[in-house]
Amino acid sequence: MWFATSNDHKFKEVSVVLKEFGIPMGRLPSKGLEVQSDDPSVVAARAADEAYQTFRKPLFVEDTGFFIDALGGFPGTTASYVYKTIGLDGVLRLMEGSKARGARFEGAIAYCDGLAPPRTFVGMLKGRLALKRSGEGGFGYDPIFVPDGGVRTLAEMTLAEKCEVSHRTKAVRGLGKWLEKNPRLG
Amino acid sequence: MWFATSNDHKFKEVSVVLKEFGIPMGRLPSKGLEVQSDDPSVVAARAADEAYQTFRKPLFVEDTGFFIDALGGFPGTTASYVYKTIGLDGVLRLMEGSKARGARFEGAIAYCDGLAPPRTFVGMLKGRLALKRSGEGGFGYDPIFVPDGGVRTLAEMTLAEKCEVSHRTKAVRGLGKWLEKNPRLG
Repeated sequence: MWFATSNDHKFKEVSVVLKEFGIPMGRLPSKGLEVQSDDPSVVAARAADEAYQTFRKPLFVEDTGFFIDALGGFPGTTASYVYKTIGLDGVLRLMEGSKARGARFEGAIAYCDGLAPPRTFVGMLKGRLALKRSGEGGFGYDPIFVPDGGVRTLAEMTLAEKCEVSHRTKAVRGLGKWLEKNPRLG
Repeated sequence: MWFATSNDHKFKEVSVVLKEFGIPMGRLPSKGLEVQSDDPSVVAARAADEAYQTFRKPLFVEDTGFFIDALGGFPGTTASYVYKTIGLDGVLRLMEGSKARGARFEGAIAYCDGLAPPRTFVGMLKGRLALKRSGEGGFGYDPIFVPDGGVRTLAEMTLAEKCEVSHRTKAVRGLGKWLEKNPRLG
């Protein structure tokens, strides 16, 4: 099984979860071009298709969006681009004075082996935007996101703790369970 | 010649400019899926390719990015999505207190007739971000953008005035000149 990603953090997190299923995983250098869509499943499915055309191995890609309720869902699937440009400071600035701080991660894994259209598995993590950044772990929006039911940001958790709750874990487990039932595809 | 776009404003502006060349233009309902790229030419070329696969007519699509220097180029090619979510107020908020207000539009037209890979034509308009929105004309970022050498926003201009200076006009004229030399393709 191959994971096409250019993100070291994602590779590490997904490795932790797939180990639960005893599924060995290699890494391919990048996923395909991303399409613009509000839906991470659409982005992931197209990227998996493209990556398969390039690598011709059974592979999956992952795409995550970060949706802030009070900003109409922004940054959504442009989360990575927004992180690189205006950054967490920009996002916090947009939310200054806002009492409605609900937000969520939506992640999608898309698997493609060339035998069928890409199959997608999704996961969601609801929570709220912190008032300021906290923690050194994780990556991306983790320092400003507090999952529902907790008080710490994702960046204040250990890798194991984050993997226990994350949207990405749910999507990977969806893939893992499906591969268990369809071992010939692994 | 067919213009694949879901944007009424763009269709009107492009019509004005293509008339200079005596090239009749029809409208197709939408361009293809957009890919995520910092470069409007890449976005437009892929979309033209996709639109051609759908419609099988000689057509072009247009994609514009809006790049703010002080925000690392944000919102770039996500301009339309950002406009729909955080809006002009969000963008102005991110720029509050910033003295560096340089910004630019970059537009690209991609033509595809299935005979060759999409051909792209580009145009740029440099200027600065206004402190507040002004004007009722145009669309998108026009109310907060003042072209270099002027004092009015694009939204304070008439359609003819805007078309005289705009990045889109430059790209369309590139297409028009090329079609004049290659009439069989029109």
